Amino acid sequence: MAVEALKWVGDVDGYLELVDQRRLPGELVKLQCRGIEQLHEAIRTLAVRGAPAIGVSAAYGLVLAAQKPGGRDSLEHALKVLGECGRYLASSRPTAVNLFWALERVRRCAEEFVAAQPNSGLRDLRRAILTEAHAVYQEDVEMCRRIGENGQHFIREGSGVLTHCNAGALATAGQGTALSVMFEAKKSGRNFTVYADETRPLLQGARLTAWELKEAGIDVVLVCDSMAGWLMKQGKVNAVITGADRIAANGDTANKIGTYSLSILAKKHSVPFYVAAPSSTFDLSITSGADIPIEQRDADEVTSFAGARIAPDDIDVCNPAFDVTEARDISAIITERGVIENPDARSIAQHLAPETSSQKQPKGVTD
Amino acid sequence: MAVEALKWVGDVDGYLELVDQRRLPGELVKLQCRGIEQLHEAIRTLAVRGAPAIGVSAAYGLVLAAQKPGGRDSLEHALKVLGECGRYLASSRPTAVNLFWALERVRRCAEEFVAAQPNSGLRDLRRAILTEAHAVYQEDVEMCRRIGENGQHFIREGSGVLTHCNAGALATAGQGTALSVMFEAKKSGRNFTVYADETRPLLQGARLTAWELKEAGIDVVLVCDSMAGWLMKQGKVNAVITGADRIAANGDTANKIGTYSLSILAKKHSVPFYVAAPSSTFDLSITSGADIPIEQRDADEVTSFAGARIAPDDIDVCNPAFDVTEARDISAIITERGVIENPDARSIAQHLAPETSSQKQPKGVTD
Repeated sequence: MAVEALKWVGDVDGYLELVDQRRLPGELVKLQCRGIEQLHEAIRTLAVRGAPAIGVSAAYGLVLAAQKPGGRDSLEHALKVLGECGRYLASSRPTAVNLFWALERVRRCAEEFVAAQPNSGLRDLRRAILTEAHAVYQEDVEMCRRIGENGQHFIREGSGVLTHCNAGALATAGQGTALSVMFEAKKSGRNFTVYADETRPLLQGARLTAWELKEAGIDVVLVCDSMAGWLMKQGKVNAVITGADRIAANGDTANKIGTYSLSILAKKHSVPFYVAAPSSTFDLSITSGADIPIEQRDADEVTSFAGARIAPDDIDVCNPAFDVTEARDISAIITERGVIENPDARSIAQHLAPETSSQKQPKGVTD
Repeated sequence: MAVEALKWVGDVDGYLELVDQRRLPGELVKLQCRGIEQLHEAIRTLAVRGAPAIGVSAAYGLVLAAQKPGGRDSLEHALKVLGECGRYLASSRPTAVNLFWALERVRRCAEEFVAAQPNSGLRDLRRAILTEAHAVYQEDVEMCRRIGENGQHFIREGSGVLTHCNAGALATAGQGTALSVMFEAKKSGRNFTVYADETRPLLQGARLTAWELKEAGIDVVLVCDSMAGWLMKQGKVNAVITGADRIAANGDTANKIGTYSLSILAKKHSVPFYVAAPSSTFDLSITSGADIPIEQRDADEVTSFAGARIAPDDIDVCNPAFDVTEARDISAIITERGVIENPDARSIAQHLAPETSSQKQPKGVTD
């Protein structure tokens, strides 16, 4: 049902295929990424976007990086190249923690492989890296499905659900995070209407979310970002569900600019506000949202559209890509592990504890 | 300094010249309106927009309507035509009360002229109508200046001011309402930064407000509508000032969609929220905002831009042109008569009482 945003084609000498999201919904064009410069550009210009999809793409990026060293290079040298390429790829988007997480995971896998099998060949190392990247991909697919299952009961029959930006199949390797909740609610036989914020400046809601939901046969109504509060006031919104780009240890959540305002408006109108994101989105090294770096993007994104100038020349622009929603304004965070109601540092730490203890449903966490 | 959005050119046989605001900021093109069908279309498609500018244009529209009857028609017949044309022009935008107010004022003037001078010629009637339309125009210019003077002290040195849509010279015959406050604060020698919401879907903020303020030498930063809350959270906004399209007897205010959300966000962040509008914007026949009709506009405004499709085909769209801000979330309403702090039915009634009593500064009204 859901579109495949990205997949690896071929074996260790293969390439990464990405849906070019800059061209949706007009055209469904696929990019063949065969080098890390091309991937860096694709991430930077949002041809591939969404924290989980960026993470999986970056994992495959290190497979591309490992294609670079010549056959006679040492494993040591290959590890060095991987480290450099990882740092380079990490610079493509400064906020998405999944990017750093996936790069670090594959890099460590390579390191451990070399430590365990120091006499193996370069091709063996490349295979180990590809296997790990495939694992990141498969886990993402599974993660999406579980998030959907864990959160779908929050969508009631006949209700209105508001979402912002795109946290759908296009944002992940699987069927998305926030949208996975909707796909699973639909699968459970419930009917509901999704209000999709168009999400200026890059219109991921209009271009991607509206398209994905329509393709999936879910009722969707496109609105401008400024209309969300008025919809809530009129009682048309019963839940807000968004994705996340980074979540601090206390539950403060960085997501697409505009999410913060929605959280305030939702609270004012007693509408529950849910964040759906994989547990890899948590960055426990960051105590609170105040420490999450906010990417500032080019003025052009705001002042031009489809080649047309929509503002005076040389106008000053403020264009933060993200904002931070406070944990106290989040009703629950839905992960592949379960649901954290009223998230705070304690309940999040419990939720993220090793699976065995998390499966015991610790107090404060609904798994 | 401020641009002339509209003016009458020539005598009773003249025409109405409008800046075609659909083409700003790319081109400064002037439309020559020589008939009411053309004016209806110009109002409907926002070539001319902003409640006061629509009102003044409609007043001149009745001058155009009075050009229609032949020289041998009776005054009675001319009045009938004026009534029909007035109803037709009133249908161009259902929310702007100034439109109805200006049409009614000019129609009544024509009626009174015919009652007082039943034996005069058609050309005399036309002259009386033009004189009244000119009076509406001149009062608008004066009204704008006074609103600016009455509100300018709300903008403090070094502060940040957020505005939404365009309540500037382009929205009036004079120098605007919300923007007049800024022009007068600037004239008083104060420096400040205006954050201009781009104002989707039609981008009046990006195209018109940013352009007007930049032309006037005022620091302006263009932002997407979804960024306003985050700017407030970061302490960058010390006041919100918007215009109004209709104000109910209790102070509930209809203005461009998104204004309601701003009022909630402003209250949350303890930022004062001001409405700047002429007293003709009050509609005392409407008890509260719940009774203000909200214009729904074409889906195309949301799904297309500059000829480019930005959403899937046949997507459902919700596109209300306005929302209603509650009086309790408005710190003050600034009119040409003075300032109504904490507006409610009583203070508004006092403010709108005949000039003589209003000049005595009744309790609750700061003139």
